[in-house]
Amino acid sequence: MSKPMGAIPADFSADGAMLTIGGRRVDALIEEAGDTPLFVYDLGAVARRVARFRASFPGIQLHYAIKANSYAPLLKYISKLVDGLDVASANEMDMALAAGNSADHISFAGPGKRESELERAIAAGVTLNCESEGEVARAIAIGERLSVRPRLAVRVNPDFEIKGSGMRMGGGAKPFGVDAERVPALVRTIRDAGAEWRGFHIFAGSQALSADALIEAQRATLNLAASLAEMIGTPPPLVNLGGGFGIPYFAGEEPLDVERVGAALVEAMAEPRPSLAGAAFAIELGRWLVGEAGVYLTRIVDRKMSHGKLFLVTDGGMHHQLAASGNFGQVIRRNYPVAIASRMDGTPEEDANIVGCLCTPLDRLGDDVMVPRAEPGDIVAVFLAGAYGLSASPQAFLGQQAAREMIVGPAG
Amino acid sequence: MSKPMGAIPADFSADGAMLTIGGRRVDALIEEAGDTPLFVYDLGAVARRVARFRASFPGIQLHYAIKANSYAPLLKYISKLVDGLDVASANEMDMALAAGNSADHISFAGPGKRESELERAIAAGVTLNCESEGEVARAIAIGERLSVRPRLAVRVNPDFEIKGSGMRMGGGAKPFGVDAERVPALVRTIRDAGAEWRGFHIFAGSQALSADALIEAQRATLNLAASLAEMIGTPPPLVNLGGGFGIPYFAGEEPLDVERVGAALVEAMAEPRPSLAGAAFAIELGRWLVGEAGVYLTRIVDRKMSHGKLFLVTDGGMHHQLAASGNFGQVIRRNYPVAIASRMDGTPEEDANIVGCLCTPLDRLGDDVMVPRAEPGDIVAVFLAGAYGLSASPQAFLGQQAAREMIVGPAG
Repeated sequence: MSKPMGAIPADFSADGAMLTIGGRRVDALIEEAGDTPLFVYDLGAVARRVARFRASFPGIQLHYAIKANSYAPLLKYISKLVDGLDVASANEMDMALAAGNSADHISFAGPGKRESELERAIAAGVTLNCESEGEVARAIAIGERLSVRPRLAVRVNPDFEIKGSGMRMGGGAKPFGVDAERVPALVRTIRDAGAEWRGFHIFAGSQALSADALIEAQRATLNLAASLAEMIGTPPPLVNLGGGFGIPYFAGEEPLDVERVGAALVEAMAEPRPSLAGAAFAIELGRWLVGEAGVYLTRIVDRKMSHGKLFLVTDGGMHHQLAASGNFGQVIRRNYPVAIASRMDGTPEEDANIVGCLCTPLDRLGDDVMVPRAEPGDIVAVFLAGAYGLSASPQAFLGQQAAREMIVGPAG
Repeated sequence: MSKPMGAIPADFSADGAMLTIGGRRVDALIEEAGDTPLFVYDLGAVARRVARFRASFPGIQLHYAIKANSYAPLLKYISKLVDGLDVASANEMDMALAAGNSADHISFAGPGKRESELERAIAAGVTLNCESEGEVARAIAIGERLSVRPRLAVRVNPDFEIKGSGMRMGGGAKPFGVDAERVPALVRTIRDAGAEWRGFHIFAGSQALSADALIEAQRATLNLAASLAEMIGTPPPLVNLGGGFGIPYFAGEEPLDVERVGAALVEAMAEPRPSLAGAAFAIELGRWLVGEAGVYLTRIVDRKMSHGKLFLVTDGGMHHQLAASGNFGQVIRRNYPVAIASRMDGTPEEDANIVGCLCTPLDRLGDDVMVPRAEPGDIVAVFLAGAYGLSASPQAFLGQQAAREMIVGPAG
């Protein structure tokens, strides 16, 4: 019996048998790129996501968390659409600068910043989202040594988390940020040292599909920022409200009602919170902006039967799409949406196990999925490959061929 | 309350406060390598493993599965100690050739070999462990086109698996190999086409710690090879009996009694199996040879408290040691053995959460482990890092600093 898979995002259609991405046939895209495996990112889909955000969150800055996807052409494109970039390493900071962003639009979060990374960020004028008292002390000392005034925001470990979020970033003991009750003292330390205090970074979770949970978390974040600002006695220049907007990967999951979240945030922000007067607000998104815009294309190299089950073996696999294989933080493997991209007009007629080329039973792309009959040479599409795909996968494993990447759409 | 961790392998000791690897202090090794994070592989430990195998498995060839660790200096060293190498991609084949191995000591397994990989292997004279009828047909066609006689072994999908093995490679429907009942016909196809039949590759599981389970699987493998050979009517030149020797990662696991496995195999091979007369036998090992020889060294960059819990944040993490973070096929995260490598003479006195530098809650190296007090600048060692470490990890994730690698010992 076949197993369910997640829904293919509505952005995609087909030209006869062939899947199209951003209006272009995948066979032509593969020819242009040179070979499979290939990641294709549709910039049009990214732009539509940004437009949806803008329509729903008036007056709120949009930041891009580049760890979701730092492929240079995509990064360059998205940099023009957003108000700021959040980076998680000094190398990501360099990527953001190279994509044309100015330092005052870049913030740098991450619990293990090295001394050399702090130095590079402070010298460049990038805002550090400080994760501990120790990091603040190191940053201040570096600022004095370099005669540069460091720009320091405080990452707050909130006492709440987004309920049901795929990954918990707040609530209880965490390696991220500073426990809320210690934040006012730390902000005083920053200001007393003559550093520039840039505000708060409050991240309560990620990959949430429940609008109610996000609405509740955003309201709690606003309240937390207000109470911290009241204790500090000065409004923060910027409150980064975090992100956490999820996308549906698996059967039965529903897309997030972003419009409802936006309406609730607008309403919540209309309430008087005098301690936040004049503060700017930002939402920081990665996966929701780019995840559905990406497709991983891999070619079938073998079709074989074993004990009555069909295996379609591809030239790609978990070394490029670890999350789709079920080995990236998941407890139970479930099927991402997949399709035979070169048989889009075919009738699903057989249960197939679509596996990667790695010599390990972990390398599965689709378990018992019902697909049209496919042969060696046919192309498999794994959807939802735009975020935490190639860069989050063990690319060197088994010395397999590297994946290619390309963009299609407005700037492609 | 602290959580248990696996046992540190007996190969390691300390010089005062400092962990030593192959007799050398880790601070000196880091200085020589230039920085943390750093993988150190002790060739002496590898040589001792090879010697243990030789003593226990007289007359059995030893093959190295290079996917476990293909770091060039290690590969060059181990190539001199073993009788053959098993590769899982054409790139790994090139690595094996570059390490000084001749083509007739190399076999190439893997369910998704591309046409170009088959060509390269056949042209080089490497043995293909064929995974399907389709692959045999492609190999024969390529041989005719290149006017080279392909060397083809058949990978058999056995009807049994190593009981309790960490990763199941045989038994039931699998993407690997050809179901046993179809093997005789496929060998006839190979021989009728004029290709060189090289024998069987039978792999029933990996990461097994039970000697009884391995003894049973090896006996079943011998019997399967004998019955296939009888049906074929010619003894196979080589029977690759697979591997599956595990190493203990977690608290409560006991090392495999390899000597007992060897004694049982010697006994089993003394029984008459006329259909295998003259056949050579090999065992193919990766993890067991190199896993315990490797240590991952990372430096503490922050020490922080959150809600009463201590976090030691390091400059390394899951981007280099995915398996230790619990995100590589594991269902439940358990602690690998870890130590404060620069405080080996200290008394364990506090529960620490040792985490990596990545901005994700998945990046954990030690949960609630009892260690001596450590400060920024101290070094953390994660043991059992010699197999499926760096190459099996998402090295590009978040743009963090690359890990270095080095060898110590006989050839280092």
